[in-house]
Parts: sequence; C-alpha cells; structure tokens
Amino acid sequence: MSENGTPGARDTTALDLRSGATLDPPTSSRLPVHTTAAIGPDAALPAPPAAAEPETPALRTVETHLDEILAAVPQPEPIELAVLDAQGLLCAEEVVSARALPAFDQAALDGYAVRAEDVAAATPDVPVELAVVGETVAGAAGPTALAPGLAQKVGVGAMLPTGADVVVPAVWTDGGLVRVQVHGAPEAGSYVRRAGDDVSPGTVAVRTGTPIGPAQISLLAAVGRDRVQVRPRPRVAVLSAGSELVDITAQPTPGQVVDVNTYALAAAARDAGAAAYRWGILPTDRRRLTEVLESQLLRSDLVLIAGTFAAEGDLVQEVLAELGPMRFRQVTMHPGPVQGFGRLGRDEVPVICVPGEPVAALVSFEVFVRPAIRSMLGKRQLFRRTVQAISAERLVSLLGYRQYLHGQVMRHPDGGYVVEPLGDGDEAMLARMARANCLVVVDEDVTEVAEGGLVTVMPLLLGG
Amino acid sequence: MSENGTPGARDTTALDLRSGATLDPPTSSRLPVHTTAAIGPDAALPAPPAAAEPETPALRTVETHLDEILAAVPQPEPIELAVLDAQGLLCAEEVVSARALPAFDQAALDGYAVRAEDVAAATPDVPVELAVVGETVAGAAGPTALAPGLAQKVGVGAMLPTGADVVVPAVWTDGGLVRVQVHGAPEAGSYVRRAGDDVSPGTVAVRTGTPIGPAQISLLAAVGRDRVQVRPRPRVAVLSAGSELVDITAQPTPGQVVDVNTYALAAAARDAGAAAYRWGILPTDRRRLTEVLESQLLRSDLVLIAGTFAAEGDLVQEVLAELGPMRFRQVTMHPGPVQGFGRLGRDEVPVICVPGEPVAALVSFEVFVRPAIRSMLGKRQLFRRTVQAISAERLVSLLGYRQYLHGQVMRHPDGGYVVEPLGDGDEAMLARMARANCLVVVDEDVTEVAEGGLVTVMPLLLGG
Repeated sequence: MSENGTPGARDTTALDLRSGATLDPPTSSRLPVHTTAAIGPDAALPAPPAAAEPETPALRTVETHLDEILAAVPQPEPIELAVLDAQGLLCAEEVVSARALPAFDQAALDGYAVRAEDVAAATPDVPVELAVVGETVAGAAGPTALAPGLAQKVGVGAMLPTGADVVVPAVWTDGGLVRVQVHGAPEAGSYVRRAGDDVSPGTVAVRTGTPIGPAQISLLAAVGRDRVQVRPRPRVAVLSAGSELVDITAQPTPGQVVDVNTYALAAAARDAGAAAYRWGILPTDRRRLTEVLESQLLRSDLVLIAGTFAAEGDLVQEVLAELGPMRFRQVTMHPGPVQGFGRLGRDEVPVICVPGEPVAALVSFEVFVRPAIRSMLGKRQLFRRTVQAISAERLVSLLGYRQYLHGQVMRHPDGGYVVEPLGDGDEAMLARMARANCLVVVDEDVTEVAEGGLVTVMPLLLGG
Repeated sequence: MSENGTPGARDTTALDLRSGATLDPPTSSRLPVHTTAAIGPDAALPAPPAAAEPETPALRTVETHLDEILAAVPQPEPIELAVLDAQGLLCAEEVVSARALPAFDQAALDGYAVRAEDVAAATPDVPVELAVVGETVAGAAGPTALAPGLAQKVGVGAMLPTGADVVVPAVWTDGGLVRVQVHGAPEAGSYVRRAGDDVSPGTVAVRTGTPIGPAQISLLAAVGRDRVQVRPRPRVAVLSAGSELVDITAQPTPGQVVDVNTYALAAAARDAGAAAYRWGILPTDRRRLTEVLESQLLRSDLVLIAGTFAAEGDLVQEVLAELGPMRFRQVTMHPGPVQGFGRLGRDEVPVICVPGEPVAALVSFEVFVRPAIRSMLGKRQLFRRTVQAISAERLVSLLGYRQYLHGQVMRHPDGGYVVEPLGDGDEAMLARMARANCLVVVDEDVTEVAEGGLVTVMPLLLGG
C-alpha cells in the first residue's frame, strides 16, 4: 500500500478509451487492450484547455483518504456475549481459568491403572500378572483407591484411582478381567492425564485479541465460561441517495434505476463482519431526510451511503453538512473518483459516502469500508491479502490514478497465478463483476502493464 | 485423499509414546519427537498376545467411512429466500433477466451528448463549437431529443437524448454551458452505455450453482429479483452423550466433565455453513432419550452426536439402533478411532456420531462432518485446501493409520510453508488445539517424517 502516485495530476475525471481510433494508445498485442480507466498521457489526446479544468483542492490519493477514515473510525466498547454468539469475534478479555483442565488425574487411554513399580519387570516375553479389582469408566462417581500389587481396568477419561501412577495400554495386556498379564513396563506417569496438564488454575486460557472459533469455544466452555467479553460487530446502516432510484420490487420507468446498492453493500458489510441494516432509498423531502439521517446516526456505529453526489445543489450533501463536518473529494482512483467522509451528529458517528454506480460502490467498499469495519472489529489484518499474478492481457492506466479492475485469477500450471481482466474498462457492468473473483490493482505510478507482465491481484474470497 | 493405508492393521487402539524409555523409537533429533499417535512397528514394543486382540470386522479407513457418509447425505430441496438471506448460499435456479441492463441508452461519463458527425472535424488545435441545449442528469424523467448541430450537457448515467450517438467527455471540452468547444472527435457510440450492454432481456444473469455474494446480489437486484431459489443451509442438531457430562454453567464434581462438544460442534457446523442448533446433553432415561432423538430426527437434515460410545451396554447406541441401521466402527485414524454413522427414522435422516473427547470431536468434524455439510449445501469443493509444508520436527506415525495433529503453519521466508506440530501427541489438550491454525495430516503409509521433511497441512481458516 505504498504511495507512489502523482498526486498533482489534475485529470479528475477518469475516462475510457473504448473505440475512438485516434485516441487508442498504440498496441501490438493481438489480445484486446484494457484501457482500464483513463486517457493515458501517451495517447494522442487533446489536452483539455486550461479554462476547462476547474481547481480541485479536494483531490487526494486513495491512501490519504483511507488513512483519514481509519484514523477516525472508533473502536466500539467490548460487550459480553454467550459463547456461541461470540463466534468469529475477537476476545476482549484475558480469560483466566478458575479450574484445572483436566480437573482430575485420568486415564489417557483404555487400559489398566497400576503402580509402575508393580510392572517394572514386565517384558514382552516375561509378562507380569496382577489381580484386577474392578473397572471404572469416564463419569463414574467418586474416587477409588488401588492397593499395591493390584490393577484396575480403566476407560479413557476415567479417574485414576489413588495409588496408581501409570496406565498400561490395553493392547500391551491380555485384556483379562479377573487377572491381567502385562507385557510392557511404562514409566511412572505414562498414559495419565494429570490434573492441570492442559490448563492450570489461574492461568490465561484465552488471550485478549484471540479470534473466537470452534476450538476457542471448546476451551472457554471447558473452563466454565458460558459468556465472554468480545469486540462487537459494528452496526452499519446502509442507505442510498438518488432521485432516479426506485425500490427493487418496483418496475422502473424510463430514466429510473433500481436501488441495488443497499442490498449489495449490506451483503458486503455482513461479509466483512458487520451487523448491517439496510434502510433503503433516502427520502427527497428535506425534513424527512434529516430525520432519517439523524435517527440512523443515533443507532449506528457507521453510516454508509451510496449515491451520485453532484458537485453542487445536492440535497443530501446539504443535509449531511448540517449534521457535521462532511467532505466530498475527488480521489485519484478508478472507478469511483468522488468519495465522502465525515463524523456527524452528537456522537461523531463516521459516515462514508461511496459512488452510486453499483460497480464503483462495491469497489469503494473494498477499498475504504471493509478495512474500516475490520478496524472496528479489532482485527489486526485490515486488508485482503494480495498476490502477484501474470496479466493475460495488456493494461493501460493513467499516471497518478490507482486503477481497480475486475478479473478472474487462477493458478498457473507452472506455479503462481494468472489473471484475466474482465471487460473493456467500462465500470458499469454488473454481469461482468458477478463473474469476477478478484480485483486487479494497478498502482498510481504504472501507466502500462505488458501482456505477461506482473500485476497485483486481490482475491475476493467471501468471508476472507 | 488417496487411500494408501494398510486396512489390515489390527491395532485399533491408538497409543502415545510419551515417556517409557524402552518404548521410545530411536531418535537423534535434538527436537522432541512427535509420536503422534500410536505404537510404531519399529519401536521395541511387546506384540500383544493374539488372544487379547478381538476380531474387529468393522475396522475401516477414513476414506471408506467418508465415502459412505458423502454417498448417504441427502441434497435438501431448494427454497426461495429474500436476496439478502441468500448470501453465502448457492443459486438453485437459472435467473433469467426480464429486463435490459442498462434499461436505456445512457452517458457513461460526464460530458456532452452530440451527433458524432457534428464533431467529426474537431481536433485539439481546431475545436468545433456547438450550441448547448439544456442539461440532463441521472434520474431526470422522460426522454429528450437532440437536433443536429446541438449538444446536450449530460451527467454520468443520464438518458441519452434521441438523435445523439456519442458523449464527448467533459475534459475534451471547454465545459461551456451556452456554447461548448469540442477538442476531440470520438467515434459514434463512444462513452455511451447501450441498453442491454450489460444484460439483455431473456439471458441468464445468475446461473445455477453460483455462490451468491455481494456482486451477485447487486446483479439480482438490478434485474428486479428480490427473492431467489437457493440451496438452503442444512439444519444440524448437535447433541452430546455421556453420564459424566454436566452443563457449562454447572460446577463439575470429581469425575464429571463439562459438555463442551455441543458448543464447539455447533460453532464448527455454523462455520461450515449449516444452521446449527445446540440441543445439549442427552437424557439418561431411555424413554426420554428416545423422545429427544425422535424429535430431532423430525426437524433436522443431519443429527450430530458426540459421545464416548462403549463397545457394549451403551444406552444411546441401543436407542439409536432401534431408530434405524446405525453402525459404530473403528476407523484407522488418530485421534478418534470410533466413529458412527446411520440413516435413522422415517425420513432416513443421517446421524453422525463422533468421539466425546473434545479434540477428537473437532478433528472428526473436520474429516467427516464438514464435507457432509458442504455437500448438502451443494458446494463443489467439499474439502479444505491443503498445502505441503516443511515439518519443524520429526514425526512418527503408525503404519495403516491416518494421523491428524494440530500445528502452527507459517510462511517460510524463502517461500513455501513451515509447520510446527503442537504438543506431544496426547489429543486431549484443548489449550493446545486453541493455539493451532492447521491440522497436519500424516497418511496411512507414512511411518516417519524427518525433521525438515514435507508433510500435508490443512489450514483451518474460519469460514474458508
């Protein structure tokens, strides 16, 4: 996540080079060229007249925007949950065991509890014979005692009788029920689980920061904890803004678009570990809009809004600005250059605004929101792992912009990975995004990746 | 998952070699030797007398037991769910779009909708000037029309006026509001998203078998689907059997053990994708026990029971046998040799019994239950991915038994992986299991892995 870009680049609108012959960068590849985002400086492009280029003081890099968000998201207070509800969360306390595990000396396998000195002479050829005095299995109530020269048949987990200091494995004996022949001499202590061998009282069983999975739940239950302090799932409210939007169940009229973002972003937020709530499409009435936003700020740890935020005259932006310091900025990335962030309301709840175009919304979620949610969960690893992959096609990118392109990554038969970028750089393709299993990341200082060249790939594993 | 074992091996009890000097296999390693499971044939062991070795007709390999389970678990019928509840499941229908995506021709970026022929002569040095007739943004109601020689300012997503066939990017112009100077000549069709470019009506948007994640939810919503047919989460009832067991909130008396398995196995089943319900400790009264098992068979797709099932006189086994063909077998694996499987009740619901010792229970879950749950979910990949890793310690294993040992796997600085096996082969260590991030798998035909040798490692990623 180094910042090698050229933050001074002023071309804040990222463009596609789909067809214009005079605008295409030269290529000798027989594969299609992916001009992922923008008019490259090497292409035969008209330089926009100076007058047409507005001042963009809010232009910033992906890293700067991400840093601001990560520095500002709060760490929700730990809460106590039943152990099964703690699954997938991080432990937020040092769980000290009040118990010994195991709680008592017990047989580690099926066999015979004896005194080691009584079988010390046993060999495969010359067995030692002992009288068997009863049998105990796991769960039998109360301790027993063993006199010298005797053996007690024990099942795995059975309490060791007082006096016995070793368990002879059943397969080393003749399995006798009245008298038993022992063909081996284990050292004192063998095949015995001593009280406290696993966990001794007063020691820490589960540490702060440990992810709680089935094995931790097993251990917590064993030390008698049915509840545990954890880092809670952040409550994320998901809303969308746009007068063109209609609900998923409506039949859109010409010019209208179905609100897909509250569904997709709520799913993505859950996948990242949040407790996500889909509110839906924001009202267009100012008073009602203010009410909705205020109530969401009261009940959320993070508010996520998708919308196409106009440069001026946008009602949602106006209302947000009334609720606290909210800034919209051109971020040097493609897709989705316009990103918003602020901490609003009395509790300074973080509000992240992402572009309304659905592909740009999910890419922006990956880049800015998922790390923020993971930070709120207390995770140490905020970012998806990336791998280097061989690009199956030539890529062209704009200097100073970080490009995110969907692709299909697969293992190369000779080792390593190959990635096939999907599509032609138009970001608004949902069907293509649904076929992808990764994002290709082209850094700000890279303007071209040759066919066969290495690119950074971020596999989009669900839940990963 | 090849079957290289020696199924004929008769030592059905897996043993540890913890201390007995005469029993330790020879070692020159300065690191501790992990005798992971059993008395190796090379160790100076007493051969058990023939009379002590019972006939074990039910002895079978891991692969055979797994094959029986996978062949027998049913495929639950698809159900229709709201798209957000379908997250993480597999699509069970060919979702045909009744709509075109996008629904109308629209601007792919901010700029000016024009007729391509009107700007064909534009160059960076000699711009073409057009009169601007209004501005449309995304969501503006109703179509507009554009006469020759004019331009219409458009925002990204705005409907293209009739007559226009290209969008000139704003940065190629002077941004004029009354008249605009155009400095480039895009080909007809450039920067226009045509209706149906993404999805055309009548085509399949999401195919049967596709895992439904945020991108698929985005696409489903866009084609107007608020519900979708999916493979449902199998309902798994989790119970434990054992007279020594007490509930997690009780203070165990000597000889008693806390029921940790229903918690740990329910968590593991949820992690594998099931809808898991923790019932708790089975009653010891025969009539009540039968009632509980019968009611769980009625409401479950799979019943999972952890317990130490004795060879004879076990009430739970007796009652299970009354409900249908249920068999307990010695499986050539360590830990957890005794495994049970059957299809019980009127609906022949699969019932899997795993050992009651908590580490063996979770290992058995990994080996047998997780693949069964994934099969019921319709997943193609039933098994966790494995990697080859360098073992940091020498391992000894019994011929004919497959060993599962917890370990910590990490990346090697020079590439590849290194695994550090945890502990000394006693399987009953919960604290150790909670520190592990992988299982080391030693195949049936391997009796020794040298320090620095390669072993198969199964990383235990949550949710993976």
